[in-house]
Amino acid sequence: MTFLLGTVFSLLASGAAAAGHLFPDCESGPLANNTVCDTTASVSNRAKGLVAALDTQEKFQLVVSTSPGVPRLGLPSYEWWQEALHGVASSPGVQFASSGNYSYATSFPQPILMGAAFDDKLIEAVATVVSTEARAFNNANRSGLDYWTPNINPYRDPRWGRGQETPGEDPFHIKSYVKSLIKGLQGDDPDYFKVVATCKHFAGYDIENWNGNERYEFDAIINPQELSEYYMQPFKACARDAKVASIMCSYNALNGVPTCASSYILQDVLRDHWNWTDDGFYVVSDCDAIQNVYMPHDYSPTREGAAADSLNAGTDLDCGTYYQTHLPAAYGRGLVDDAVIDQALVRLYSAQIRLGVFDPASSTAYRSLTFSDVNTPEAQDLALKAAEEGIVLIKNDGTLPLDIPSNGTLKIAFVGSWSNATAAQMQGNYAGIAPFVHNPLYAASQLPNVQVLFGGSPGDPTTGGYPAVLAAASAADVVFYVDGSNSGESADRNLIRWSGERRDIMTLVAGLGKPFVLLQMGDQLDDAPFLNQENVSAILWAGFPGQAGGDAIMNIVTGKTAPAGRLPVTQYPEEYVRLVPMTDMGLRPNETSGNPGRTYQWYDGATVPFGSGLHYTDFEVSLHEEDDGEAPSWAISDLLDGCAENYKDLCPFRSVAVRVENTGGVASDFVTLGFVAGEHGPVPYPIKQLVAYERLFGVAPGSAATASLNLTLGSLGRHDEAGNLVLYPGSYSLLVDVPTQATWNFTLSGDETVLEEWPQDSGPNQNATMVMLKQAI
Amino acid sequence: MTFLLGTVFSLLASGAAAAGHLFPDCESGPLANNTVCDTTASVSNRAKGLVAALDTQEKFQLVVSTSPGVPRLGLPSYEWWQEALHGVASSPGVQFASSGNYSYATSFPQPILMGAAFDDKLIEAVATVVSTEARAFNNANRSGLDYWTPNINPYRDPRWGRGQETPGEDPFHIKSYVKSLIKGLQGDDPDYFKVVATCKHFAGYDIENWNGNERYEFDAIINPQELSEYYMQPFKACARDAKVASIMCSYNALNGVPTCASSYILQDVLRDHWNWTDDGFYVVSDCDAIQNVYMPHDYSPTREGAAADSLNAGTDLDCGTYYQTHLPAAYGRGLVDDAVIDQALVRLYSAQIRLGVFDPASSTAYRSLTFSDVNTPEAQDLALKAAEEGIVLIKNDGTLPLDIPSNGTLKIAFVGSWSNATAAQMQGNYAGIAPFVHNPLYAASQLPNVQVLFGGSPGDPTTGGYPAVLAAASAADVVFYVDGSNSGESADRNLIRWSGERRDIMTLVAGLGKPFVLLQMGDQLDDAPFLNQENVSAILWAGFPGQAGGDAIMNIVTGKTAPAGRLPVTQYPEEYVRLVPMTDMGLRPNETSGNPGRTYQWYDGATVPFGSGLHYTDFEVSLHEEDDGEAPSWAISDLLDGCAENYKDLCPFRSVAVRVENTGGVASDFVTLGFVAGEHGPVPYPIKQLVAYERLFGVAPGSAATASLNLTLGSLGRHDEAGNLVLYPGSYSLLVDVPTQATWNFTLSGDETVLEEWPQDSGPNQNATMVMLKQAI
Repeated sequence: MTFLLGTVFSLLASGAAAAGHLFPDCESGPLANNTVCDTTASVSNRAKGLVAALDTQEKFQLVVSTSPGVPRLGLPSYEWWQEALHGVASSPGVQFASSGNYSYATSFPQPILMGAAFDDKLIEAVATVVSTEARAFNNANRSGLDYWTPNINPYRDPRWGRGQETPGEDPFHIKSYVKSLIKGLQGDDPDYFKVVATCKHFAGYDIENWNGNERYEFDAIINPQELSEYYMQPFKACARDAKVASIMCSYNALNGVPTCASSYILQDVLRDHWNWTDDGFYVVSDCDAIQNVYMPHDYSPTREGAAADSLNAGTDLDCGTYYQTHLPAAYGRGLVDDAVIDQALVRLYSAQIRLGVFDPASSTAYRSLTFSDVNTPEAQDLALKAAEEGIVLIKNDGTLPLDIPSNGTLKIAFVGSWSNATAAQMQGNYAGIAPFVHNPLYAASQLPNVQVLFGGSPGDPTTGGYPAVLAAASAADVVFYVDGSNSGESADRNLIRWSGERRDIMTLVAGLGKPFVLLQMGDQLDDAPFLNQENVSAILWAGFPGQAGGDAIMNIVTGKTAPAGRLPVTQYPEEYVRLVPMTDMGLRPNETSGNPGRTYQWYDGATVPFGSGLHYTDFEVSLHEEDDGEAPSWAISDLLDGCAENYKDLCPFRSVAVRVENTGGVASDFVTLGFVAGEHGPVPYPIKQLVAYERLFGVAPGSAATASLNLTLGSLGRHDEAGNLVLYPGSYSLLVDVPTQATWNFTLSGDETVLEEWPQDSGPNQNATMVMLKQAI
Repeated sequence: MTFLLGTVFSLLASGAAAAGHLFPDCESGPLANNTVCDTTASVSNRAKGLVAALDTQEKFQLVVSTSPGVPRLGLPSYEWWQEALHGVASSPGVQFASSGNYSYATSFPQPILMGAAFDDKLIEAVATVVSTEARAFNNANRSGLDYWTPNINPYRDPRWGRGQETPGEDPFHIKSYVKSLIKGLQGDDPDYFKVVATCKHFAGYDIENWNGNERYEFDAIINPQELSEYYMQPFKACARDAKVASIMCSYNALNGVPTCASSYILQDVLRDHWNWTDDGFYVVSDCDAIQNVYMPHDYSPTREGAAADSLNAGTDLDCGTYYQTHLPAAYGRGLVDDAVIDQALVRLYSAQIRLGVFDPASSTAYRSLTFSDVNTPEAQDLALKAAEEGIVLIKNDGTLPLDIPSNGTLKIAFVGSWSNATAAQMQGNYAGIAPFVHNPLYAASQLPNVQVLFGGSPGDPTTGGYPAVLAAASAADVVFYVDGSNSGESADRNLIRWSGERRDIMTLVAGLGKPFVLLQMGDQLDDAPFLNQENVSAILWAGFPGQAGGDAIMNIVTGKTAPAGRLPVTQYPEEYVRLVPMTDMGLRPNETSGNPGRTYQWYDGATVPFGSGLHYTDFEVSLHEEDDGEAPSWAISDLLDGCAENYKDLCPFRSVAVRVENTGGVASDFVTLGFVAGEHGPVPYPIKQLVAYERLFGVAPGSAATASLNLTLGSLGRHDEAGNLVLYPGSYSLLVDVPTQATWNFTLSGDETVLEEWPQDSGPNQNATMVMLKQAI
């Protein structure tokens, strides 16, 4: 009668290696004389030196996320899995202290709200703080240096449970955003990565478990045109242009092949087409996508085959234990060879070398960052600013900003299930431990000349809280109804409407006839019942705004800050989710399937369109170009002739100046959005496509500022059915603002010209092990 | 800058009345001279006396679940909402102490496992313990006396999140079960209810939120035939036969009318057709179904209308606040009259009177029960027995029972995510606080000559735990893989298969070649991958087995107790959920819609059929009748002539003796199941229908016992398209056991005869307020 709880864990030491982030001792450790410790050698030679010192069985243990290291070589254990979606986040490799130093990190808004700011400099600044804090944690041996962020799958369906983790639905927007983000995360030191960032989930991910379709098994069927023009765009920017050091392959299959076992996307597209081959660039699997290649994908016929197919396709690191467990047998059966395992290890250790792991602490200032660099006053201000910039004013009858008497008291009722929002609600997916989380109720309670009447939640679905809600609202001068919708990982939404119970209590309270402000948090819900409801005075969307979210909201509400955020997603009507299954990856309307089209590019029935956002003032937008009379024209060949860019889609076309005049009474930022529409390229034509944006800051009443919309040839191009990016002759219109305030028409003439030839998929692989095994039987 | 957190709650005192269970003072309180306190008066006169003392505004406050009482009359506040699905449960009206006395109550298995026992006496015994403990809690002022249990919607779809709360999918089975249960809960004192039980959810409920179809809005479309023969059967037994004191109307609409606003089901069916009109019988709404009548059902055009429609249809008590808030205005507008509010109050207070609330404490022994009557040794034994009786042996190659050496040590590995199951997993929905919860790991650790190797959970979906799982399994003599699936309220399942990750680790571990036992917990999952997998030695299903669940499992595993439970539901193949949407309420196969049929009556593709269950011995089953040569025949008119029953479906037909011989080597219980099949009545014919069962206890090896299958005319009848129960001429077969071991054929002749005429629905109501409001506009 013995009870050995847990003792067997030690039987497989390598499977239970503790996370650790000590650096190898290159001064006097066993590796001191290995080339890896020679800072004068090239990165790849250093990595090869280390790999040459490993025996084969050791190698298989080092290509998993919880690496045991090699004690005999003084190579420490290492946890490759860190998260930092919007601040250093709780994850296997991040150890927050229970109190005091390193017990928290700055918590910025979720990307969906930061995306709404349309301010790339803001994103770079936020990412710079995150990487600084990450380095501080690492220097205290509290985290590794490989961060599995950002999530850049475009938010193509409003039900997606992880849409909140992305900047939105538009590929141009995500591209601009992610370039700034990666710059901030990886830093600008040519010799050292500040941290390794990881663009995920490559590619065609974005379903969690909708209606029994689990991400681990989902096979995304995407045609080359839409794959190239939409799903791949963010990764192209991240890998080719921003030179992110790591890419994560995804759970799903893409056109029949699990992405982690797809040499088409990992080799042909990523490494060959995008030239993503710098020292230290590696591919990591989602957790545990390599297991999924075996089951439930049933792609590889054996476990060893799944491990081999993934490694051979170019997945260098396994988040999980499958490589560790099954590569030895795969090697024994000849399914993998020495070259491919060495290639993975050279990539992984090159990344470590470029992080400075094998270099003296004096080699980079990153090694000197400490907890005094965490959640600094500047970082706190930035977290507040990021939330303020993102918040979107959807409706306003003049109630906002509130008129708070300077020598009296304004009674504000706070009701609804998010009014006293939890930290989890305020922060959203992949959060860290914040130094504080100021929710709307708290922030309001800090305002002078305001009395807060907290009425709690009405209950959903029960009505137990109705009386208290009504009592608070009845006793107040103004009612704030704070509520929202929360999706999450493994939790797609089925519905995007306000529930019947919420519509009931909200209209009941609004019916009291007091100024009624809907503070809409979390994911988008169809606001149609409230947009035309005159008892609803204002609607403000604040997403998941992070540690200073309540402060940001109240700064907007009181007019201390003027709102200027724009919706980075379409707010769809509730019926949308009945028209198209999540599994349908098609973007274009399809009469046969009933797909009404996805995103603002192809769907025109939005409740609140992409790019919408009101102000406390009025802006008039004008273009010099628009009054020039006849539309100008360019010859396509001329446009290309003068361009020296390696990648022709990056060739500049024209910088268009937009005059933005504040004709109202309140100083305000203004987000200048430029879209292209017109009859050019393959039918159907999209409604319009975002091609440039610039946020202008603090435009004073009565004054004007100028935004520059920098168009490239790529932004004028369209993708043919094979996925090639082509510049087509035809008519073009630049549309500025949402709704459009100014238009500039021009034409391109001459022959259509390919800007980028898209690599073709040879179709579902004859995967190597499948063939070999079949032959062996 | 003031912060009034919570203070506004007091503004509407009646909405925030504290729960309380003190009885009114009939000796010297304000009601002492009211007829309600006169124990010699009739129940209805007593109730009318109380109601006559109320003013109109007070009345509206008393028809909600959290009743404020009437202080001026000394009528205490009262919380009507108590739960006791499988033991006194955490709920608004039940206050467990934080420690010591009344800090726990006996936790029996979930009904789905107790249903598997097919032992009605067991159910009555369990219910008797529950009501005893409930009275003890009430006597200590820790609970009310109205319990919103049982859930008797038939489990018609494997995805249903609350199927675990029911005894299973078969209506005859639920009817037998619920009659025993109500007897145990309400007691057998002709003068007093022990507690008031509540059969729910009336009717056509059983979808939570599948694919965006929320229970609050779902409109169940059910034809009269299937409504009468299936969905209504458990309620008929509960209301008409068991005379439950309370019925809960459901969230859903039924054929266009929200059930709480349906005079068809609440008056025509329940009260008129089933004569459910005894003193103290009342209808309560699900929480907050009356609000839902307004939104999201959009059935009544105003809030007042929803309250009025529900009260007028016969919903006497509102779980929620809608009656309280909106009946005053409804009354003011003439939508409800005095008679209907008085009728509701008379019903509610008649129930209180029949509970003895207005009688002296000496009037019933129920008032003397104390904490010494809670979780007695007998109750603990019963909780263990209930779990043992329900556990179903699905597969066994002889590995079970385990051969534990008396002078050595058997090493058993426990792995899988439920091996160290939490209390929530062991207890399931609507649990109370148990005195202890013995999970499988704990129970195994208590066994002599056994060494337990705990390998933890493999992780799902990640493989982080694989190495520890494999290490434990590799070091053991026998492997127990303990895992399961958990649904829940508001959480239907989309998938009924073992995930790819679980199949992977389970087959990997089974592949070690050791005896491998799958302990399947929770809801059913498709076991097809393991049934024909020779490395899987045994499969045992143990549901949600309650406080003694682990002990029960290990008693079965070690052979201390022989398994004899039978599956009370069909175990469907995983593809089933792709063939029929949950929203399709149809039972019969339908070629047009693709519905393959529901339950064993109409679907023959089960992975493991309803009624399956193996033993540690062999049983031979025989019928005297089967060898009589030519099939006997009865004239339908003769069968009816001699019957004096009020309800002809209860007329006895014949008690069929079944000889059950234990031809193996282990004493064992045996569940005798009798089904009727044959060509009679409307096509299509069901495959078979359960008509009787009896559990035999402890049949010794080499001996035989006799079960009596008591057939009624109702059990031979079938329902026509109008829902009438009809006895048809034709061929009949009694099939005994699963799979069938014995058959008895007979015929009925003569004219088809209606046993029960089903009240017809006049179609979606012209609901009263709708008409009145339309006229008013």
